[in-house]
Amino acid sequence: MLRGERVGVSSDQAYVMGVGCTAFGPQPTPLKHLALEAGRQALVNAGIDLTKIDRLYLGNFAAGLLQSQQLLAPMVAAGLGLSRCAASAVEGACASGGIAFHLAVRAVESGQCEAALAIGVEKMTAASTAQVTQVLVSAMDQLSGEPATGLTFPGFFALLAQRHMEVYGTTLDHLAAVALKNRMHAQFNPRAQFYGRPTTQEEIRASRLIASPFRLFDCSPISDGSAAAVVVSERLARQGAGKAIRVAASVQTAGPTSLQSMSRLTSIESAEQAAKEAYGKAGIRPEEVNVAEVHDCFTAAEIIAMEDLGFCPIGEGGPYIASGETQFSGSRPVNLSGGLLSKGHPVGATGLAQVFEVVRQLRGDADRVVPNARVGLTHNVGGTGGSVVINILMKE
Amino acid sequence: MLRGERVGVSSDQAYVMGVGCTAFGPQPTPLKHLALEAGRQALVNAGIDLTKIDRLYLGNFAAGLLQSQQLLAPMVAAGLGLSRCAASAVEGACASGGIAFHLAVRAVESGQCEAALAIGVEKMTAASTAQVTQVLVSAMDQLSGEPATGLTFPGFFALLAQRHMEVYGTTLDHLAAVALKNRMHAQFNPRAQFYGRPTTQEEIRASRLIASPFRLFDCSPISDGSAAAVVVSERLARQGAGKAIRVAASVQTAGPTSLQSMSRLTSIESAEQAAKEAYGKAGIRPEEVNVAEVHDCFTAAEIIAMEDLGFCPIGEGGPYIASGETQFSGSRPVNLSGGLLSKGHPVGATGLAQVFEVVRQLRGDADRVVPNARVGLTHNVGGTGGSVVINILMKE
Repeated sequence: MLRGERVGVSSDQAYVMGVGCTAFGPQPTPLKHLALEAGRQALVNAGIDLTKIDRLYLGNFAAGLLQSQQLLAPMVAAGLGLSRCAASAVEGACASGGIAFHLAVRAVESGQCEAALAIGVEKMTAASTAQVTQVLVSAMDQLSGEPATGLTFPGFFALLAQRHMEVYGTTLDHLAAVALKNRMHAQFNPRAQFYGRPTTQEEIRASRLIASPFRLFDCSPISDGSAAAVVVSERLARQGAGKAIRVAASVQTAGPTSLQSMSRLTSIESAEQAAKEAYGKAGIRPEEVNVAEVHDCFTAAEIIAMEDLGFCPIGEGGPYIASGETQFSGSRPVNLSGGLLSKGHPVGATGLAQVFEVVRQLRGDADRVVPNARVGLTHNVGGTGGSVVINILMKE
Repeated sequence: MLRGERVGVSSDQAYVMGVGCTAFGPQPTPLKHLALEAGRQALVNAGIDLTKIDRLYLGNFAAGLLQSQQLLAPMVAAGLGLSRCAASAVEGACASGGIAFHLAVRAVESGQCEAALAIGVEKMTAASTAQVTQVLVSAMDQLSGEPATGLTFPGFFALLAQRHMEVYGTTLDHLAAVALKNRMHAQFNPRAQFYGRPTTQEEIRASRLIASPFRLFDCSPISDGSAAAVVVSERLARQGAGKAIRVAASVQTAGPTSLQSMSRLTSIESAEQAAKEAYGKAGIRPEEVNVAEVHDCFTAAEIIAMEDLGFCPIGEGGPYIASGETQFSGSRPVNLSGGLLSKGHPVGATGLAQVFEVVRQLRGDADRVVPNARVGLTHNVGGTGGSVVINILMKE
């Protein structure tokens, strides 16, 4: 016989109260200390009492493989003085940070706790490029996936790019437009890996070939870095003097974990699905998004993201970006941080760095602020679409 | 201004509706397939429609390091036919499985979903013992922890054992009593790594020295295996024809991640704290626990667990176990499965294998059933106490 007793958990809206982010790019700082730096920034930015933080979700992909360090979550909790806080490490390849944020949001939304900290961290530059490429391949299914075919992630996304060019007429100029825009944006983000290093269409097109059609500038760099967010209940958010940003939707989906299990190569279907769900939850249409940070691990991925997110019709991602509409001065700026391509891509940190940028845009305290942004979106993709997290954030 | 709208999330009690567990020990089966086997068993055992499972939490420690496989959660979700289910991998060293279960319980308790699947999995026997020992060391803080001192986990727990002997007079006979009891219990568990391999006090005492005072039989073996549990809401549990077991408490705590940050060496304080919280939540006293699965990674760890859990006074864990009270025929059997020592210890699976045994004891369908057990406890420890999960399960 089952007892009828029900625990009184109060459900709630979740808000981002504080954010933090280290500089991205090669760092002398050890892994744990990167996480501590971003975590401390977020806690200070939130102005929250440490004893209020009940849960830590730490997104990381490769500390085991690259630093021989596991069980990182309680180490970071202890380093931040959150020693009584339940601390869990979560992994979803390049979506690890997004999942950490999503779990923090769900914990607060569902009334499990009033405040949770999400941190994403990765340190990759101490390893060789070949080693990092191999480590990244671990995000494909080793039994039925690409390793058997020798495919790496540049190769996987290059095949998607080729298919997109074949089916929709996407061009090399479209790819270069993505790389150029994000590098331009990064010139206004002092934390970006390529801050102070502008480029030109000519340099992009002349850079060395990586995996056809991708040249060096089509690929995100190898990076170190960490980002963090403090997620709180409505009650705590009300004490934040207007700086809290509401999480209108946070959606995590699962999708194919190898190329051959995808139903088509011109879309990340789990992202399309997550976006639809997120718009439904938030009660908005794609056109209402003012600013977005999307997962441009390669230039073609940003083109596909525009379509998956409903920012433009299917097949028109290339022309849409080339039109300038997603530049700072356009109608819907995308990747104002510089994106993964130019801000850098410390894998586990990326999902939270996206939240960092969007929250600061909505608050109006970003490094270069888009005027009047009220609705922001983040789009974080792991593996071949195996894990996706999409968040819609709103200024109220 | 913050909007006052509140989402109607129904809070609930969580129940274990189904459990699964592979054989433990060296297996030819690949990692992913071990997880699929335990997951399928649990789903079939629960008799639940796959479309009801909204969340998968996959506990794993070392697939990245040992199989070069990350992003395992969506791969397992897809393999089980749960392709629309949000799937997250979680890591907390030897408590990875416990954390996966805890997060599934919290997701259901808080009304996030009506049904969640937790799976724990590890495949370790393909690597050399030296490699596994090194991989396990990654669960200590690499910056401020034992690696600088050359300490491994057998060394760490051996120091705790030595201190316990020094302070409380615990003896080698007490340690041997733990090893002997758990090996005896394993003779009734066909899934146990040492099923069909009984031992004697003489063999235990004569086995080769590993880290003084530990000999071979004081140490859990290197294992492959997977275990799983389906956690459901009260509404779904009511459809389960009495086989659902209530989760009266599930508590996760964080603790020290290195020896030198512990305040004393004779207790895992984060486990003591988690136990107190769990008893409080469940509304019971330690004496009311009928059956327990505890984290006996080494014999001394079970002695310390008896004290941390309040099963006996501090310092008396050795005599308590030697008295026979925790044997099958005693008043409170502990580690009827054989424990980590004799059932085996596939790191990420252990926390869920404990749930598997306790649920089947409470239901009365275990391999050897303790009569009239109503309250069961699981105790899962990661690293040097960095992550701990304690669950109290009740038959209703």
